[in-house]
Amino acid sequence: MRCETRLVLALDETAPRRALEVVNEVSDHVDAVKVNWPLILNAGPEIITRLSVMSDVICDFKVADIPNTDRLIVERTMELGASAVIVHGFTGEDSLRACVDAASGGEVYVVTEMSHPGGEMFTSIHAEEIAFMARQCGAHGIIAPATRPERLKDMRSKVGGGMKILSPGVGAQGGSASTAISAGADYVIVGRSIYQSANPADVAKAIREEIATL
Amino acid sequence: MRCETRLVLALDETAPRRALEVVNEVSDHVDAVKVNWPLILNAGPEIITRLSVMSDVICDFKVADIPNTDRLIVERTMELGASAVIVHGFTGEDSLRACVDAASGGEVYVVTEMSHPGGEMFTSIHAEEIAFMARQCGAHGIIAPATRPERLKDMRSKVGGGMKILSPGVGAQGGSASTAISAGADYVIVGRSIYQSANPADVAKAIREEIATL
Repeated sequence: MRCETRLVLALDETAPRRALEVVNEVSDHVDAVKVNWPLILNAGPEIITRLSVMSDVICDFKVADIPNTDRLIVERTMELGASAVIVHGFTGEDSLRACVDAASGGEVYVVTEMSHPGGEMFTSIHAEEIAFMARQCGAHGIIAPATRPERLKDMRSKVGGGMKILSPGVGAQGGSASTAISAGADYVIVGRSIYQSANPADVAKAIREEIATL
Repeated sequence: MRCETRLVLALDETAPRRALEVVNEVSDHVDAVKVNWPLILNAGPEIITRLSVMSDVICDFKVADIPNTDRLIVERTMELGASAVIVHGFTGEDSLRACVDAASGGEVYVVTEMSHPGGEMFTSIHAEEIAFMARQCGAHGIIAPATRPERLKDMRSKVGGGMKILSPGVGAQGGSASTAISAGADYVIVGRSIYQSANPADVAKAIREEIATL
């Protein structure tokens, strides 16, 4: 996945036609488009292939199964045209290694903790161990929240410069693109502010320009 | 979901035609068929609807996202014809409540821990807390491994009689149907022993009869 605009669109749009329209409009201004299961369950898995013609596609599937099932999910996701997949780390080292092996050239980003309130219950306490494990397993990068720049800085120092950090929560959720990039994110992920806008390309271009000034 | 044969088929078959054939053959001998993402990524989400004509369908999606995404996944899964969905508990109470609310009449089973080696790293230590949370949130049941009957007994005592326990690992993975049922499982989940057999219906019937003698 290129790292030029440092902007990723979270395409949390479940209507297939609208999803394709938005990506067609913004693809020049983003490095990738991130899709999730609700779109797949509405549009079918072939939407990954259709989107991949216009943009790199990150499948935010939060893969969290036993190693063999993880392997099947990641292999098929890459076959369909994805460039990267987001997987959970809490399922342990064997599951994560299965994902990294199955991606064969594609990128694997690991969720180290979740930033919604429930994420505090069982994920936050393991974030550093999972980040360390992600590095050991050869994952391409981790996910860390733009809404908590201090935590982002901390995770950057934990994983070092060799791993990419994808940072969600910019825009409607309150995080700032420039703050997240300054705190160590390689990419910021922006959703509603772009895809719910009347002019998605204009919004994406403005965020891209904000990042470029850093 | 009925609880007559107490047998669930884990349909870890990714070829759509073969998946439909197997379910057509065994549907009289199982209470439900459990499917996972690899089949959806190969056959498309409409396979859920096609299977649901022949059998109750449990979507083993290990749902593990923020509450709003979980809600969208579970709602759509139920719309497609599933009777039940399997979700993770480690994403916390708000995510789990979103799943239970979105299932509206369908059943939610919660993964409390995972039995593969990596499951020991971050999931086993939280199994009891997650089982307790599942009960508090109104989930229909939990998942507990047939390969560890002592653990199954323990989880049954933790959740009481009001929740169902679905127990994977019977057959090729080494667990015994009768041992798991005796230890407190309501349903045993059997995969390869049935769907990779030359006569899936005969194998399913034999397991069903073994359970019926208890």
